[in-house]
Amino acid sequence: MDLDLRYIDGGVCAPKGFQAAGIRCGIRPGKTDKDLALIYSKTKASAACVYTQNKVFGAPITVTRRHVEDGIAQAVLCNSGNANTCNEDGIEVASSMCSYAARELGIDNHDIIVASTGVIGQPLPIEPIANGLPALVEALSETGSGDATEAIMTTDTFKKEVAVEFVIDGVPCRIGGIAKGSGMINPNMATMLCFVTTDAAISPALLQQSLSLVVKDTLNMVCVDGDTSTNDMLSVLANGQAKNKPIDQEGRPHDMFTQALFLVLQKLAAMIARDGEGATKLLTCTVKNAPTDEAARAIAKSVIASSLFKAAMFGRDANWGRVLCAVGYTPVAFSAGDISVSLASDSGRVDVCEHSHGLPFSEEKAAAVLAEEEIQIDVDLHDGHERATAFGCDLTYDYVKINGDYRT
Amino acid sequence: MDLDLRYIDGGVCAPKGFQAAGIRCGIRPGKTDKDLALIYSKTKASAACVYTQNKVFGAPITVTRRHVEDGIAQAVLCNSGNANTCNEDGIEVASSMCSYAARELGIDNHDIIVASTGVIGQPLPIEPIANGLPALVEALSETGSGDATEAIMTTDTFKKEVAVEFVIDGVPCRIGGIAKGSGMINPNMATMLCFVTTDAAISPALLQQSLSLVVKDTLNMVCVDGDTSTNDMLSVLANGQAKNKPIDQEGRPHDMFTQALFLVLQKLAAMIARDGEGATKLLTCTVKNAPTDEAARAIAKSVIASSLFKAAMFGRDANWGRVLCAVGYTPVAFSAGDISVSLASDSGRVDVCEHSHGLPFSEEKAAAVLAEEEIQIDVDLHDGHERATAFGCDLTYDYVKINGDYRT
Repeated sequence: MDLDLRYIDGGVCAPKGFQAAGIRCGIRPGKTDKDLALIYSKTKASAACVYTQNKVFGAPITVTRRHVEDGIAQAVLCNSGNANTCNEDGIEVASSMCSYAARELGIDNHDIIVASTGVIGQPLPIEPIANGLPALVEALSETGSGDATEAIMTTDTFKKEVAVEFVIDGVPCRIGGIAKGSGMINPNMATMLCFVTTDAAISPALLQQSLSLVVKDTLNMVCVDGDTSTNDMLSVLANGQAKNKPIDQEGRPHDMFTQALFLVLQKLAAMIARDGEGATKLLTCTVKNAPTDEAARAIAKSVIASSLFKAAMFGRDANWGRVLCAVGYTPVAFSAGDISVSLASDSGRVDVCEHSHGLPFSEEKAAAVLAEEEIQIDVDLHDGHERATAFGCDLTYDYVKINGDYRT
Repeated sequence: MDLDLRYIDGGVCAPKGFQAAGIRCGIRPGKTDKDLALIYSKTKASAACVYTQNKVFGAPITVTRRHVEDGIAQAVLCNSGNANTCNEDGIEVASSMCSYAARELGIDNHDIIVASTGVIGQPLPIEPIANGLPALVEALSETGSGDATEAIMTTDTFKKEVAVEFVIDGVPCRIGGIAKGSGMINPNMATMLCFVTTDAAISPALLQQSLSLVVKDTLNMVCVDGDTSTNDMLSVLANGQAKNKPIDQEGRPHDMFTQALFLVLQKLAAMIARDGEGATKLLTCTVKNAPTDEAARAIAKSVIASSLFKAAMFGRDANWGRVLCAVGYTPVAFSAGDISVSLASDSGRVDVCEHSHGLPFSEEKAAAVLAEEEIQIDVDLHDGHERATAFGCDLTYDYVKINGDYRT
């Protein structure tokens, strides 16, 4: 598609009519990091969400589902430091968070999307949030995207912000997004927290359609550790301030919007994978010529999720047998008889496997390829025409370290 | 069942009429470990096998399938150091291994079970095996089980041997087994190499029936890293030398044999889990009161396979939220509304979750419980009557280290 698009600064505040803020309210005593984020649209916006598919899910998800049932929202409130999950008073606390924010913002509490991330099963105290909200609302600004991003981070090591500007029917529109990773990251929706804003005018139904389509090939293709979190959420607010002709049916403007949303979420997906807990490398696995779309996706994710392969990538070891092993145990239908594998990076490319058998290759060259921070793994099944790409990271000492004493 | 059974020494040589040996033949230059194992029955034996379900599987599996089609075998030949998988000449090499061994043993080459373990995709040289076979056969003895066990080890840190003696119809019978772990370990058959011998007289069909039943609750419930190997194999040889009335139909003698086989494989399963690559702890998760057998198994394995939970156990962190998270993302039907979780070891027991909500507990006591080397995780779903137990281990720095440079 001929999409006139460029990357811009500003994160979730790049689209017109959005403000954001992030502050420290004190959810976890003794910590000094920001822990409360707010994204606010000056006008009501079309809203679309996707959520974790974990049967054990956080109270904020229950509350948010109710609030966006009507397809409308105006703000996103998110705390880090506590997941508000598996708590007896969870729904009460999540509802209260919305009520306090609504009062401070002067909007309807049903127009607030609420999210939490952090430890599971410890009661979330409402006091620091209630006490912090006036300052949070006061801090809202059109340059606040970075602060909001910081406030939703847990073990993330860098901020994940993207924004694009693109043209629909001659009218410039913007989409901005922020996200957090980086543990409990696995397919099946949302794999993390991700909040997107856009000033494009689009109906709630078409917005949800774009989101549901795009998430399959972006955030749902990220795998850090195979653990699908209880609190994953991805939301989009579209406030229409770009004044484009409202998108309320399928067609070229809707396709262009969907494509722009895809590019924003693809960037955020790669950032999340690259910043997987303890990761030193981004691994991108593309499976080509699979018999079905489902098989292509499942096999790409299987490779990217293999602990053995991830550890080999950390060790810069071109142990392609682990790629074939992970392809082989993927529980989907395909033929394993004619698989090619190659490994590539900015330092070049090595073909390591053809017809499901090993190829001779230079260990020296392979070591140089694998020394880079971004590794591309190409798997060709020669068994159809479908393709898919998954994003992951290596498995390192630091993953173990981070998760061995996360709670304490 | 009232089974008169005791644990004895001798491994696969404990049953009458079996010999074993393990030597170094030199498959990987520069290494000094034993790498070639042989188990031999003086008479032909009923044979049963189960194999990896990985679509990419080793050449030895293709050859062994053919050889045990008739339900009869007399010897097991296994090398370590090379998996003979994804090699163009793999089947030829695996067949040659059998031919050389058959000639040296003076038996039919179709009566040999062949297995390989080690790196994938590097041609397995036949010369060291052919040259080593005379010495290997010469070394066969009734005290050779330990040497054979050593010869099949890769990254294992201790030998895994079990033997039992039990009485059927007044006749003492024996079952012995040896196994190797410890990476690429995951459900779906065999999760490793395991060779079992017995002097019980039992028909091939009933032997296969016992094996297929027992493997579901033992070796298939082990998970070290979620990677189902290409070369997993579990075989049983039953040579009838105990002179019991041959078991050729269902009934009490068959049940007793099956129960004894279960106990042998359960011990080996726990040993494999305890010796998972880099592991410092054995984790045993029992799921109770699940709606279906399938759900109980899947949930128990999901907990034991969670990287986040495994890392928490390494860090002695009673982070039970990760248990609920792993329970919740298991793709089976069950209700997640009334889950209890407790953690126990020789140092006591802490109840950490009830009605899917956190319970107050002493962090000090939890730390003491988790300081032990064997941790029991009990999950009660209160949603049915089925139960299952899975075996796993913690995720440690050493797992990453071992797998970061395994091949080099």
